[in-house]
Amino acid sequence: MALGGGHGLHATLTALRLITDDVTAVVTVADDGGSSGRLRRELGLLPPGDLRKAMAALAGTDESSQLWTSLFRHRFGGTGALAGHAVGNLVLAGLLEQLGDPVAVLDEACKLLGVRGRVLPMSVQPLQIEADVIGLDEDAAQVRRIRGQVAVATTPGRVQRIRLRGPGGERARGCAQAVDAVLGADVVLLGPGSWFTSVLPHLLVPELREALEATAAKRVVVLNLVPQPGETEGFSPEHHLDVLWQHAPDLKIDAIIADVDSVPVPDRLRRAAAALGAAALLSPIAERGEPERHDPVALAASLRHALGGPGESAGQASSTTLHRSSQHRGGEESWR
Amino acid sequence: MALGGGHGLHATLTALRLITDDVTAVVTVADDGGSSGRLRRELGLLPPGDLRKAMAALAGTDESSQLWTSLFRHRFGGTGALAGHAVGNLVLAGLLEQLGDPVAVLDEACKLLGVRGRVLPMSVQPLQIEADVIGLDEDAAQVRRIRGQVAVATTPGRVQRIRLRGPGGERARGCAQAVDAVLGADVVLLGPGSWFTSVLPHLLVPELREALEATAAKRVVVLNLVPQPGETEGFSPEHHLDVLWQHAPDLKIDAIIADVDSVPVPDRLRRAAAALGAAALLSPIAERGEPERHDPVALAASLRHALGGPGESAGQASSTTLHRSSQHRGGEESWR
Repeated sequence: MALGGGHGLHATLTALRLITDDVTAVVTVADDGGSSGRLRRELGLLPPGDLRKAMAALAGTDESSQLWTSLFRHRFGGTGALAGHAVGNLVLAGLLEQLGDPVAVLDEACKLLGVRGRVLPMSVQPLQIEADVIGLDEDAAQVRRIRGQVAVATTPGRVQRIRLRGPGGERARGCAQAVDAVLGADVVLLGPGSWFTSVLPHLLVPELREALEATAAKRVVVLNLVPQPGETEGFSPEHHLDVLWQHAPDLKIDAIIADVDSVPVPDRLRRAAAALGAAALLSPIAERGEPERHDPVALAASLRHALGGPGESAGQASSTTLHRSSQHRGGEESWR
Repeated sequence: MALGGGHGLHATLTALRLITDDVTAVVTVADDGGSSGRLRRELGLLPPGDLRKAMAALAGTDESSQLWTSLFRHRFGGTGALAGHAVGNLVLAGLLEQLGDPVAVLDEACKLLGVRGRVLPMSVQPLQIEADVIGLDEDAAQVRRIRGQVAVATTPGRVQRIRLRGPGGERARGCAQAVDAVLGADVVLLGPGSWFTSVLPHLLVPELREALEATAAKRVVVLNLVPQPGETEGFSPEHHLDVLWQHAPDLKIDAIIADVDSVPVPDRLRRAAAALGAAALLSPIAERGEPERHDPVALAASLRHALGGPGESAGQASSTTLHRSSQHRGGEESWR
């Protein structure tokens, strides 16, 4: 299973689908931007966009599943009240108004898109991110409280710490099915994605963090290819691990997957990983020609390696990828 | 098959479904009010509301079909940009933007709703109704041109005649699949519904009118239970037939079905029907306690009668209904 949000979660889900059909996605529900943010403000519902993207990553490949997946992604044109809304967000919003229970809504929508596996929200209530940020004032050490996913993701300051709040300001509550999925999983992937607004929020829902600490699953963190402008500008790979540890000091990590070209000083990352009890796996996992996107096949290969080395068919897939990547990168060493 | 729009078409489709699974609906696309009108204006698409209602009448009865049918009907709440939009209208609008061809869009949406039969638009382009209306000026005979479905349906004047225009002012063109469906049908139902804005428009699409004139199908007109306030205020049942004849003088009608309580002078209707070569079938077909709605079972029974008398199971259904209605209406004669 994979926890996250946005494009990062799409990448891990696509990679996991190459390994197994039994994939569960647990998705952030703290988004307040774009079509999701408009729906959240207008109707008081769970922001649907990240849930929709996770479904798309797990959608069936038959004609009907693809038609509805592509409709869900379609954004209205024009210059009117609907412009920019993704049709799938509107369908999910309608189902949420009608059925109430987000888990039932997602199960029904998943059927329509032929999803193999399951998509769950981290919480059944829309959550709000609140961050302590420095560097916004003349006194660079002055801590300011910044509220909302878009505001945190785009702050010109430096995010120190985040908190999550429920709609009435109360503490965030975990979705029971998501908690059960973490406890019953074989592997849990955390990241990549916007570190403070898509990845760390999962650790700030107490029930989810406790499940992540207690589960017998292998815990794998996938680091970003590039720092996010704004929220993690100038963050080294090790610093990503530092803030993760700050937000969940009791969480044990088994492996850390990173793109070899995105790690300036590999030894530092290895030391930071070792401090968390984790192995660091560096290999080329960026898409050829698109250094900001993960290559799902390469990511799947690295993941297989993290889980104890490639099996028969897995071995073929990974060596093919590595070979291709090696050529592309001029014979650079693939596994270190 | 049935041609019409809105609630009237819903009634005939529901009745036809009691007789056969092979039902085709041909639906007006001249609506410019409500959620449909907003979508039409904002996105330049076919107004989806009447198409959606026709699908709902033919939807499957299994759990999934019912869930999506009920979602399609669901209207967004709140006070924002989405308030009042039916979710199904937005889905159809998204599919129209994505697939382009309205017939393909409807076939896909029908699959989702488990529709048995088919729903087709009268034209693949949004049409505009234009009416000649008198009684709007001090000189009561002054003819004014009123444009748009809502304006025509609610005019305080008296509609004399209507015309249809395509989006660029050109003549309306019939949907080829709808024309074929008329030519291949066993029975064609026209009406009930808003006479000038849902029923007669079908006769003003030249290809559709020619197909209705040429088809070997039995042609049955179902009259309204009550005059529509505005467009047919004060119209007698016979006058409904008059204006139908004015708009399609070469159209032969086989039978005219009317509710016995809605016809003040039965003999006049019989004479008007005979002038069109049609039999007039008067029976109680209004819903008990809801005199403005057709009872689908009673309408189906009357329809079976129109098509040459009830069959075995049909006979039972109709006599049950007639018995129930007779009791309700104090033993009034059912078939005249």
